[in-house]
Amino acid sequence: MEKLIITLAHTGNVPTKELNPNTPITIDEIVEDIKACRELGASVAHIHVRDEEGKPTSDRALFKQVLDRLDAERVDIIKQVSTGARGGENTIAWRGQMLDLKNAEMASLSTGSSNFPTSVNANSPDLIEALAKKMYDNGIKPEIEAFDVGMIDNAKRLLKKGILKGPLHFNLVMNVPGAIAGNPKNLLHMVEILPEGSTFNVSGIGSSQVPMLTMAILLGGHVRTGLEDVIKYDKKTLASNAMLVERVVRIAKELGREIATPDEARKILGL
Amino acid sequence: MEKLIITLAHTGNVPTKELNPNTPITIDEIVEDIKACRELGASVAHIHVRDEEGKPTSDRALFKQVLDRLDAERVDIIKQVSTGARGGENTIAWRGQMLDLKNAEMASLSTGSSNFPTSVNANSPDLIEALAKKMYDNGIKPEIEAFDVGMIDNAKRLLKKGILKGPLHFNLVMNVPGAIAGNPKNLLHMVEILPEGSTFNVSGIGSSQVPMLTMAILLGGHVRTGLEDVIKYDKKTLASNAMLVERVVRIAKELGREIATPDEARKILGL
Repeated sequence: MEKLIITLAHTGNVPTKELNPNTPITIDEIVEDIKACRELGASVAHIHVRDEEGKPTSDRALFKQVLDRLDAERVDIIKQVSTGARGGENTIAWRGQMLDLKNAEMASLSTGSSNFPTSVNANSPDLIEALAKKMYDNGIKPEIEAFDVGMIDNAKRLLKKGILKGPLHFNLVMNVPGAIAGNPKNLLHMVEILPEGSTFNVSGIGSSQVPMLTMAILLGGHVRTGLEDVIKYDKKTLASNAMLVERVVRIAKELGREIATPDEARKILGL
Repeated sequence: MEKLIITLAHTGNVPTKELNPNTPITIDEIVEDIKACRELGASVAHIHVRDEEGKPTSDRALFKQVLDRLDAERVDIIKQVSTGARGGENTIAWRGQMLDLKNAEMASLSTGSSNFPTSVNANSPDLIEALAKKMYDNGIKPEIEAFDVGMIDNAKRLLKKGILKGPLHFNLVMNVPGAIAGNPKNLLHMVEILPEGSTFNVSGIGSSQVPMLTMAILLGGHVRTGLEDVIKYDKKTLASNAMLVERVVRIAKELGREIATPDEARKILGL
């Protein structure tokens, strides 16, 4: 089996200092967590940023600060920017504003709509096409965020139309309340219908974190972890990004998967 | 196996006279198609209405006219009103305005969001809860419209919370461009994860019409057909609602499924 790519989703849109004081919110905190988790084995950073009030934002200037700081401090990690639906205005211009940053190598792209716990994860057909185009125009590889089966099927339709270009890389987002449940049967179905030649990682939200990531490792997939996906380490303990990376590294070791370096990950992902 | 319930989706939101002159648009045309298809074997009418310009609307007054005309003409068919996202304003008040009509027995309820070909099928968590409540308050049984796997999983979450009441009845909507593809593997997965004791029908959009409905019959499910789901009868011929009902009746006969009367359907659906 290929070496295991660990993606760090350090902040996301939901966690706050109130929910978990380990959440990195400021640029400094975000860069520090990425550096520490790189040392522990993460080779991709799935980057979200927050504004001065701690609110999720797609603000290009803030993304630029994180990416430039990582370069300045020579942190060798694949920089993946989020174009998600909860960073403010739901427009193409707002959500895609950071896609011209020269040091972004990947970006997230949802290929359909679903529900979040209290809102709609709205990604219209027009927006999907426009964000995909901007990514390819800027030499950025999309990571297809599939919150449900239909988003894989739709990625296949977009591949056929030439709007997406294979081989594709997916993140199978399991167990968001309102979307597909995180259980082995659902995950196996999703993996079985991926376009041939695809690579994938798995996100396990909340209580599905350990079983879904373990199954991903078993199936030859890759993993994403971090406070974006799970706030608690177990029923009693709050997590930190480092604790979550350390746990998945230990599980991978037990299952005989070696951890990919950023350069090995670039090769696997075709960057 | 149980007798087969045939639901007629006569008009929907997309078909026009230009696309297919057999599309019933006016109240008269809608009532005539429902009457004719009742004679041919349909036992449920999934009702959409159009305004004076032929545009989809959730207008209570128009729904009332259709329901009252069916009663006045003693058309014994289960009347299921649509609360779908494309009937104008996407608000709880607008989309749920017809749910107090005394002669409505069922209503459609999407339990998540997905994409339509050119727009978002947006059903927020709040809207889902409010529409479900109004249905139960008015003695209306929801038909859960599942455009993807996550909508089944979310229906299970709502069942656990007591917002939905079992046994549930689903419509598995296969092959909407932008949502789950209509193929046997996907349909089997959806059927296998339904809550125990559920009933279900299957809609096969476009080219998936015949294979998906045939598979539904084989699996002991029920079927929905009509111009809402498919405009062409085959590659060359435009369909009519009657032609579509006649075809599924013939297939059911070949496969040994008898057709349910409206009263038999009421018993199966627990109305």
